[in-house]
Amino acid sequence: RERKRSHWKVAVMPGDGIGPEVMEVTVRALRALVDDGGPELELVEYGWPSHAWHREHGRMMPEDWREQLAGHDAILLGALGDPGPLHDPNRYLLSDGVSLQPLLALRKGFDQWACERPAVLLDGAPQYIRDDRARDVDMLVIRENSEGEYVGQGGRLRPGTPDEVATQMEVFTRRGAERIFRHAFERAVIRAAEREAGRRRQREFPSPDGGTARAQVCLITKRNALQYWGDMYTETFAAVAADYPAIATHHELVDAACMKFVTSPWAFDVVVASNLQGDILTDLAAVLCGGMGVAPSCNLNPSDRHQPPMFEPTHGSAPDIAGKNIAGPTAMLLTAAMMLDWMGEEDARARKAAARLREAVEADLRAHGGSRRSTTDVADAVIAGLG
Amino acid sequence: RERKRSHWKVAVMPGDGIGPEVMEVTVRALRALVDDGGPELELVEYGWPSHAWHREHGRMMPEDWREQLAGHDAILLGALGDPGPLHDPNRYLLSDGVSLQPLLALRKGFDQWACERPAVLLDGAPQYIRDDRARDVDMLVIRENSEGEYVGQGGRLRPGTPDEVATQMEVFTRRGAERIFRHAFERAVIRAAEREAGRRRQREFPSPDGGTARAQVCLITKRNALQYWGDMYTETFAAVAADYPAIATHHELVDAACMKFVTSPWAFDVVVASNLQGDILTDLAAVLCGGMGVAPSCNLNPSDRHQPPMFEPTHGSAPDIAGKNIAGPTAMLLTAAMMLDWMGEEDARARKAAARLREAVEADLRAHGGSRRSTTDVADAVIAGLG
Ligand SMILES: CC(C)[C@H](C(=O)O)[C@@H](O)C(=O)O
Ligand SMILES: CC(C)[C@H](C(=O)O)[C@@H](O)C(=O)O
Repeated sequence: RERKRSHWKVAVMPGDGIGPEVMEVTVRALRALVDDGGPELELVEYGWPSHAWHREHGRMMPEDWREQLAGHDAILLGALGDPGPLHDPNRYLLSDGVSLQPLLALRKGFDQWACERPAVLLDGAPQYIRDDRARDVDMLVIRENSEGEYVGQGGRLRPGTPDEVATQMEVFTRRGAERIFRHAFERAVIRAAEREAGRRRQREFPSPDGGTARAQVCLITKRNALQYWGDMYTETFAAVAADYPAIATHHELVDAACMKFVTSPWAFDVVVASNLQGDILTDLAAVLCGGMGVAPSCNLNPSDRHQPPMFEPTHGSAPDIAGKNIAGPTAMLLTAAMMLDWMGEEDARARKAAARLREAVEADLRAHGGSRRSTTDVADAVIAGLG
Repeated sequence: RERKRSHWKVAVMPGDGIGPEVMEVTVRALRALVDDGGPELELVEYGWPSHAWHREHGRMMPEDWREQLAGHDAILLGALGDPGPLHDPNRYLLSDGVSLQPLLALRKGFDQWACERPAVLLDGAPQYIRDDRARDVDMLVIRENSEGEYVGQGGRLRPGTPDEVATQMEVFTRRGAERIFRHAFERAVIRAAEREAGRRRQREFPSPDGGTARAQVCLITKRNALQYWGDMYTETFAAVAADYPAIATHHELVDAACMKFVTSPWAFDVVVASNLQGDILTDLAAVLCGGMGVAPSCNLNPSDRHQPPMFEPTHGSAPDIAGKNIAGPTAMLLTAAMMLDWMGEEDARARKAAARLREAVEADLRAHGGSRRSTTDVADAVIAGLG
């Protein structure tokens, strides 16, 4: 299985709400690329996970979802979430756990232990931070995606009584820490090389040997309060860092990091964080690159490229605007580009298609920025603009 | 002990780094108020907690700190933290747990179960968010300060080996949830009354009965991933909310809330969150009101006003600029004003002093905004401006 792939079987999962709309136009863009010298994509559409499936079968996905998906090279997901009747003022009380369980199940099922979210502010994307240096943000937030705060262990003692005690266990392994840190440093090595080659904004960080480094990895913890895994993370990070003397290192507490993401985002390069802290920081990173409308993300298994990764936009299913052809497809299109990038590590045609798609989206953003257009208008412009 | 206090014994703790500098001028401002018809303040200065004390005694505070402080009405803290030699590139590896332990010990020791941070952007304070509607932010973030993620339970199995497992337990009680939610709703009731009386920016929120409410409480959880306490929090919140039909309610997941703090901060009113999520959100709230240089905070026990609360600015000890008379004292001065506000609930002279101090700080900010001035220059201007 070590030979390079040139045929890619992709599970296409439109999901709920605006998911099907943004997915439809994205599939159109992908097909246009395939038909015009792009990679060989076999796009297989699934009606699940979704609330439509849930209404019919009482669950978000069939029981044998893992078997059905195992033969695929990648998963492209639209959006999940159907928070009940929109007009119900108490709908925040309904657990949305149902909608989102498939996300966690897929991440676990294919051991997608790394979640990546690059933050670069494209021309035309909304800028939320006042300081114009924030336009230069060039950050990659890497989230541990397989353990930590998300292990789902714990329970409720005496539920519903005044004496209730709810517990939630966080479990961190050194293996889990080590692999995500090593992945972060590997990404930093690539970024340093891209800067060396002039293909990425130049940056300088104080390096461990007293000189300067072209890339940095910043570790996030809350070790002044969450001491056990905080200390384990810090020690493991230091051990991994020792293998990368050309990469600068840094540490921030999660609260300070959130502040600095807003006050000086340009100071960060690669950022690596635990599952929950990474969840928060990747969402803030999405804001830095223009918000939900433009932020792609992926969940992948860097130690086994044959476990299908899952690519999904950061936005939700936005049921309030679903079915109106007004949802912006930019995030979904950039998510597809991210998938093609990933394929591009093995397949030159995919690499080229990724660049074409991303450039077309960027050109469209530059030309039309924040103006209100229909989903299909944006997609038509992007497809027409594929170079 | 139910009679109103008119004499206040305050433990003044300058702490580390810039703490002593900003505290010195703040004490000067307080004395000026006292001498000019203000409240009766007995300011008792302590050399601990601090790293200076630690160097001499091997600990941040004397063993009998609780007894020594028990007779005080309030604690005013400068800043803590001394992260080791500034030039050491590995200093992030030194645990800063030492510096900060007193904070957690004091909060626990006096059962300061609520941490409050108001976010209002004063004229002249730095504005980090691009959208000018962010100038209208008028938020109160309330953090559960006594349990949850901060219980310090857990450990490290096989520490330092490849097979290490680190665990950290989160423990939430229904009593803890119920009291912090009730406190949040009580604050919302006051804010609604202030709006009714025209003393606070007008706001409208959809209320449970289909009408509109003048105030809202937004609950933060991550219950789609941290389900046990997320569900307990949600149910407890609903039960408390039922007692406040005139207050609107809302729920946000912590990741979405962090994003919305940046993209639409004006949409929030009272926000209530767990210990760690509140830690993050109060820091973001500090950014919204202009950042570390201007953000006050307090830790208090609303169910027992005779447990001394602790007032501290949000900023750290900034060792790199300590001793140079350049640290901005604005956050410390506003923290003192917050202390006077709290005293003002019992003591009309304190209430008046709080308003005088705050107005003088605001006038100074308006006049000088972000210009670089010495610590003493700012303080002199504020003291001269006390109306
Ligand atoms: C839906 C939820 C469980 C999920 C998470 O917390 O991981 C989401 O916020 C995300 O970032 O993909
Ligand atoms: C210093 C640290 C333990 C503390 C906390 O997390 O509570 C700080 O961040 C704060 O917000 O007061």
